[in-house]
Amino acid sequence: MRKILVVGIGAGNPEHLTVQAVNALNRADVLFIPDKGERKSELAELRREICDRFVTNPASRRVEFAVPVRARPTGSYRQTVDDWHAAIAEIYERLILGEIGEDGCGAFLIWGDPSLYDSALRILERVTRRGNVEFALEVIPGITAIQALAAGHKMALNRIGDPFLVTTGRRLTEDGMPDNAGTAIVLLDGQQAFLSVADKSATIHWGAYLGTPDEILLSGRLGDVEEEIVRTREEARWRHGWIMDTYLLRKAGN
Amino acid sequence: MRKILVVGIGAGNPEHLTVQAVNALNRADVLFIPDKGERKSELAELRREICDRFVTNPASRRVEFAVPVRARPTGSYRQTVDDWHAAIAEIYERLILGEIGEDGCGAFLIWGDPSLYDSALRILERVTRRGNVEFALEVIPGITAIQALAAGHKMALNRIGDPFLVTTGRRLTEDGMPDNAGTAIVLLDGQQAFLSVADKSATIHWGAYLGTPDEILLSGRLGDVEEEIVRTREEARWRHGWIMDTYLLRKAGN
Ligand SMILES: C[S@@+](CC[C@H](N)C(=O)[O-])C[C@H]1O[C@@H](n2cnc3c(N)ncnc32)[C@H](O)[C@@H]1O
Ligand SMILES: C[S@@+](CC[C@H](N)C(=O)[O-])C[C@H]1O[C@@H](n2cnc3c(N)ncnc32)[C@H](O)[C@@H]1O
Repeated sequence: MRKILVVGIGAGNPEHLTVQAVNALNRADVLFIPDKGERKSELAELRREICDRFVTNPASRRVEFAVPVRARPTGSYRQTVDDWHAAIAEIYERLILGEIGEDGCGAFLIWGDPSLYDSALRILERVTRRGNVEFALEVIPGITAIQALAAGHKMALNRIGDPFLVTTGRRLTEDGMPDNAGTAIVLLDGQQAFLSVADKSATIHWGAYLGTPDEILLSGRLGDVEEEIVRTREEARWRHGWIMDTYLLRKAGN
Repeated sequence: MRKILVVGIGAGNPEHLTVQAVNALNRADVLFIPDKGERKSELAELRREICDRFVTNPASRRVEFAVPVRARPTGSYRQTVDDWHAAIAEIYERLILGEIGEDGCGAFLIWGDPSLYDSALRILERVTRRGNVEFALEVIPGITAIQALAAGHKMALNRIGDPFLVTTGRRLTEDGMPDNAGTAIVLLDGQQAFLSVADKSATIHWGAYLGTPDEILLSGRLGDVEEEIVRTREEARWRHGWIMDTYLLRKAGN
């Protein structure tokens, strides 16, 4: 049977790679490297650097594949994502059938950790459901952007004994700060949702390009630093051509 | 100035160690290894195994230190924790002053990731506030029990575009399932708080001894598997003398 490894590669620093991930990449005959048509070419670069530096298996081949861009939602958000996943599942299936021998092993390189706002596992489930190819699956965890943020700010994610909510920019805008947790951590924010938070006495710990040599960290009382974050973010995005940022909001007090 | 590295060592598998963590451990002159008076001696064993396997710096020394147990809460929970942290801060200060040369480097080995329900960073902040010793701090992220759980179950932590809440057993019992997220992830649960969840149609993904050779995974509809989890947990705890478990609860539907 074919074997598929879904390998978390960390969130920006090649040294985020775990020993387990290095070994997994070296077990694979084929490394599948997504090309997200990125202006974020620095991210594609990082994936190559990881392979160059850590893959010593001479038998291993690299296959870069194009990931279709998600359509602008026309119907529901869920339907759009569903169509998009269906399209990617066909690509995965083709890769698995075409590039991995019947007893071979292929690895998908996943940014951060495969369990955090990533669709590879769901798409592989779809491939299984399609019924055209069987494979055994193994998941290798990786350092997430959230941990890179906390390490950068040298802080805990939670207040003592208190829950925290991990959410997206869209949901933070819709829902506001959580009632059931002192802390909200926000990913996937294209709209600077922190500006919509009413409680300006909250503190924000913000990070962009975490783990990379371009890492930027800013923190302070939301009301005091939100404009500086907007400016810094805009300027950096303009300079790099892209940005990835994450932040933690904590209610005042403890 | 002294340098302190706070190094996440992963949540049970020595191969969770990142390249960055391996390098950090090898930069340190002294490795501080907590001894939590553990019946969990397997955990102390794992820390030793990590050092034996990955530390190649011949100049490095290991210092094991006893961590006082937290008193049973008499006043408020917060006060009890505060007293406990104060006691540990004194120990940390003594270690830093006594074991690290004035330009030396010491590393604290932290289970999982230092940002997740761990007090080392808060305690080091206290040491700084006490004003008796100065040091530069660096934090190295590690794989958490949450990521080990997700990898074991080969699943995502979030539903598509949906938030998730990370909480403790105590807070799950008090608060119930979150209204603002389809998923709750529970750590630090000595009371099998999942039994208190009213919505038995939720699914649970449970894991114990994650990342270790003794890993146990169970999942299913809460109403169907909760008793099996209780039994399995009790039996395993009896056999090992200790248990560490974590689980994810997800509302039915998507
Ligand atoms: C689709 S999610 C994938 C998260 C990834 N699986 C992980 O474990 O970090 C992408 C989001 O993660 C965050 N992110 C990922 N890498 C980042 C980095 N190096 N710096 C800042 N944010 C990052 C951003 O919020 C971005 O919108
Ligand atoms: C004090 S918290 C520390 C968490 C740690 N810093 C991390 O990043 O995983 C301890 C809790 O983490 C969870 N945990 C840690 N390691 C685990 C493992 N190997 N298997 C299951 N649960 C684990 C349990 O819920 C335990 O009560």
